Amino acid sequence: MTAIVITVSDSSFNGVREDLSGPAASDYLLDHGFDVRGSAIVPDDAAQIKDALLDACSRADLVVNTGGTGIAARDITPEVTRTVCEKLVDGVSELMRSEGRRHTHLAVLSRGICGTRGKTLILNVPGSPKGAVESLAAVIHLLPHMIDLLHGRTGHDKPSPANATPKK
Amino acid sequence: MTAIVITVSDSSFNGVREDLSGPAASDYLLDHGFDVRGSAIVPDDAAQIKDALLDACSRADLVVNTGGTGIAARDITPEVTRTVCEKLVDGVSELMRSEGRRHTHLAVLSRGICGTRGKTLILNVPGSPKGAVESLAAVIHLLPHMIDLLHGRTGHDKPSPANATPKK
Amino acid sequence: MTAIVITVSDSSFNGVREDLSGPAASDYLLDHGFDVRGSAIVPDDAAQIKDALLDACSRADLVVNTGGTGIAARDITPEVTRTVCEKLVDGVSELMRSEGRRHTHLAVLSRGICGTRGKTLILNVPGSPKGAVESLAAVIHLLPHMIDLLHGRTGHDKPSPANATPKK
Repeated sequence: MTAIVITVSDSSFNGVREDLSGPAASDYLLDHGFDVRGSAIVPDDAAQIKDALLDACSRADLVVNTGGTGIAARDITPEVTRTVCEKLVDGVSELMRSEGRRHTHLAVLSRGICGTRGKTLILNVPGSPKGAVESLAAVIHLLPHMIDLLHGRTGHDKPSPANATPKK
Repeated sequence: MTAIVITVSDSSFNGVREDLSGPAASDYLLDHGFDVRGSAIVPDDAAQIKDALLDACSRADLVVNTGGTGIAARDITPEVTRTVCEKLVDGVSELMRSEGRRHTHLAVLSRGICGTRGKTLILNVPGSPKGAVESLAAVIHLLPHMIDLLHGRTGHDKPSPANATPKK
Repeated sequence: MTAIVITVSDSSFNGVREDLSGPAASDYLLDHGFDVRGSAIVPDDAAQIKDALLDACSRADLVVNTGGTGIAARDITPEVTRTVCEKLVDGVSELMRSEGRRHTHLAVLSRGICGTRGKTLILNVPGSPKGAVESLAAVIHLLPHMIDLLHGRTGHDKPSPANATPKK
């Protein structure tokens, strides 16, 4: 399973703040069986976020965005992600938030979405290293099965026993 | 309360796989006080799903779709359902997913929605018999009150004591 | 922090039913540090709800609507609110519903949304005094931080220690 991580942050793009959440997300994915093929840093700009997403979707099974999921004026990652997704998977974003509440009640403020484009799964996670990793941890057990479904490798609404992971 | 069940499945429509989830959903509704007026099997095709939904909405208080709620390429039931709904009731789909997690962590992958069209309530449930019944079971206690509301039989945001079911 | 409360109710607008939820919401906000600058009662009419929202957004940090969040024919508050919001914060509405379930299982039927317009936060709560206050209580601890974020007073996805409230 291949993955690309995109950091969305004006300050990291401008070199004002070191990008810690992108590397944290990449490390987490590497530790969980993903072949992280690349990463990028883009500012909170709709066109640049969209270009980075489209490029990444053409090259990986999983695209993770970190940053721009909040409610500050420049936070537009979810809105842009929505424009490139063919399907939204609300249950995954709900799960990131409800599990996130175990760590901080601010988790509910993340507007990060999960969706699909072709055979690629897209996941928005918050822009702090801790928030990014905690969000990934909340859904990591679902990702292999989701990627299998996108590649038509399992039955339609009918996971094979081999793919069905036991209840957490 | 009348109901119609629509199975959305290419393989059942083509006779390749027996439709088990439609009958399971119908039986569950019959056991819970619904007069199930009919059922249909349609393929994962937008126009046919939409036609079946519109026809069913003109004839029943509750329309349940089973199937096509996942993320595989052909799964489009939620997208089509959205086009016929006048209102969406996100809390009901959230509840189906969060209760579903008691049974399988894959429940969060169901993208099934709940919405209304005129006086009809529409509910998407997953395409496995187990998933369909578990989803219905998660919300069955809400349906009579919702149908009452759609028929103007209870106050606006003010259930009468007779209709207010006690906290589960 | 300034707030305006808008009651959306045909019967209260027409004087048929006393507006209890608006004053209940105002009192709750006053008790929690908000300077409630005004209130209004509008019928369940799209244009009048929208005008009231736009006017309130130009004058307050927080706008709370009470009423019109259900599924009855006239309930259109969420749909209208969506048209004035620039961003939606689904996690906040999810939290109002999931916390609301502690009080009544009908809480999941509230379709109330949370969103932002410019620097103003908008919150839809149900149209009963109890439902309105319980919904506010579920999210009140988040509101000061959200308003800070909308005013650019905290870092981007990075609440300062002073603003970061401890986990509830």
